[in-house]
Amino acid sequence: MKQFSEISDIRKEIKALKSTGQSIAFVPTMGALHEGHLSLIRTAREHADEVVVSIYVNPEQFGPNEDFEDYPRQMEDDLKACEEEGVALVFTPNDEIMYGSGEKYFAINIEELNEHMDGASRPGFFEGIVLVVNKLFNIIEPDIAVFGQKDIQQFLILSQMVKEFNHDIELIAAPIARANDGLALSSRNAYLSDQERKIAPGLYRALQYVEKQIRGGVMEPKLLLNHQQDELEAKGFKNDYLNVFSMETMQPVQELEEGKQYILAGAVYLGKTRLIDNIILDL
Amino acid sequence: MKQFSEISDIRKEIKALKSTGQSIAFVPTMGALHEGHLSLIRTAREHADEVVVSIYVNPEQFGPNEDFEDYPRQMEDDLKACEEEGVALVFTPNDEIMYGSGEKYFAINIEELNEHMDGASRPGFFEGIVLVVNKLFNIIEPDIAVFGQKDIQQFLILSQMVKEFNHDIELIAAPIARANDGLALSSRNAYLSDQERKIAPGLYRALQYVEKQIRGGVMEPKLLLNHQQDELEAKGFKNDYLNVFSMETMQPVQELEEGKQYILAGAVYLGKTRLIDNIILDL
Repeated sequence: MKQFSEISDIRKEIKALKSTGQSIAFVPTMGALHEGHLSLIRTAREHADEVVVSIYVNPEQFGPNEDFEDYPRQMEDDLKACEEEGVALVFTPNDEIMYGSGEKYFAINIEELNEHMDGASRPGFFEGIVLVVNKLFNIIEPDIAVFGQKDIQQFLILSQMVKEFNHDIELIAAPIARANDGLALSSRNAYLSDQERKIAPGLYRALQYVEKQIRGGVMEPKLLLNHQQDELEAKGFKNDYLNVFSMETMQPVQELEEGKQYILAGAVYLGKTRLIDNIILDL
Repeated sequence: MKQFSEISDIRKEIKALKSTGQSIAFVPTMGALHEGHLSLIRTAREHADEVVVSIYVNPEQFGPNEDFEDYPRQMEDDLKACEEEGVALVFTPNDEIMYGSGEKYFAINIEELNEHMDGASRPGFFEGIVLVVNKLFNIIEPDIAVFGQKDIQQFLILSQMVKEFNHDIELIAAPIARANDGLALSSRNAYLSDQERKIAPGLYRALQYVEKQIRGGVMEPKLLLNHQQDELEAKGFKNDYLNVFSMETMQPVQELEEGKQYILAGAVYLGKTRLIDNIILDL
């Protein structure tokens, strides 16, 4: 496994791989790799000859009051994990390499798709992601890129970016990796106290309960969702959202229709830690 | 020479070229090719093994009251000209291929660089160019792309886009091709009446006069520029702008400094025809 921080170095290696006809799958990460990331890397390996991982905590996708400074960083462990998973190249740029020091004159704006869900709670979050991923796609030029279904809004927004910007890249969503008790794996789970960690799977259980009711025929889930939010509050969560969203426009949906795809998604706080989770509903 | 309209077809051909180690220079055009475009193609051939030309009149870079409908279209002549210049591939998409019919959720915004010059007179013009060129860059993935110095603001904005978006493409500005009497070649010259065509070189002569005065020591050219605008009006031009701009920020500059680069640029109307021209000042 080789590690590069400079764009010109990683490009040279990728060109060398491509010139031998190898296909490349790319897994962009912010490090603090856990079993969820490893499952992305494994999915990547199934779809291409070689896997490239980037490790970069992108400041542009953190709001001023968010956890950029505290975000877990563990480069040595991450590199070891990548090596064990058979990753060919790891790209570890710094801020100067990714954003330079010069004036910025371009902004990529997103309409509608970021109005709800995490976009509503985290202004500028998806613009920051799109900014860095567009760069990374142009640097790595992979055949395939793998993202987690856990960040479903990210996946759908990036899929739309690939379409509108004509990136020649196939995006794959890998299933959510979960702890035994159902908690979706996340680098931010490291923030949870023992007590919070015990409560945390409640979000997924609420989603599962709502899913079951919808599959049982509840096509107007508003009251059901409200009730589950009350239950979550009673258990010690602070609610951000719990709702059903359109798979295409990422707008909340009041009345579900058979034959359509939806995202049943929730975001909660436990103390200062924000947890998200979702279930894709194929009705 | 091969011609393709579908993205998947041109990509296949370009991958085949690249797999044999050929480098690719790209010349995006809106067709109506004249000697200016041919000089871009020749510059492209000097810098790479194979040349790819796109011919596409991009609706996104025309304002509602501009000449999109009337813009000259002459595909057959254009293809013949490309063939004669040894172009390997011509990409001729239509609007459906370039923009599809689905909803658009992304916008690329430009700050500062499009406030003056053609950006001021043509709202949305450079956003439209950036939108289509970002797509074309991702479709063609050339090593080099050649643009005309005549559209200097376009060249500088696209250079900045390449930098901020990390496109792995070297941009080259080819010198302005001129008629014997100095008029910068342009597809829009076809709109000029005989009488207008006779007057048209006056814009370049005005720029040359200002350049001479600046090189002679006039470092605050405001009065000089005002006077030349009056002269142009007297000759039958309608002025849009005539000014000296920073090469970096594309903002107007009042006081020139030695050792810096500037753009001395003008835009005028003759009847309904808009003409632009510029001289790069390396002081």
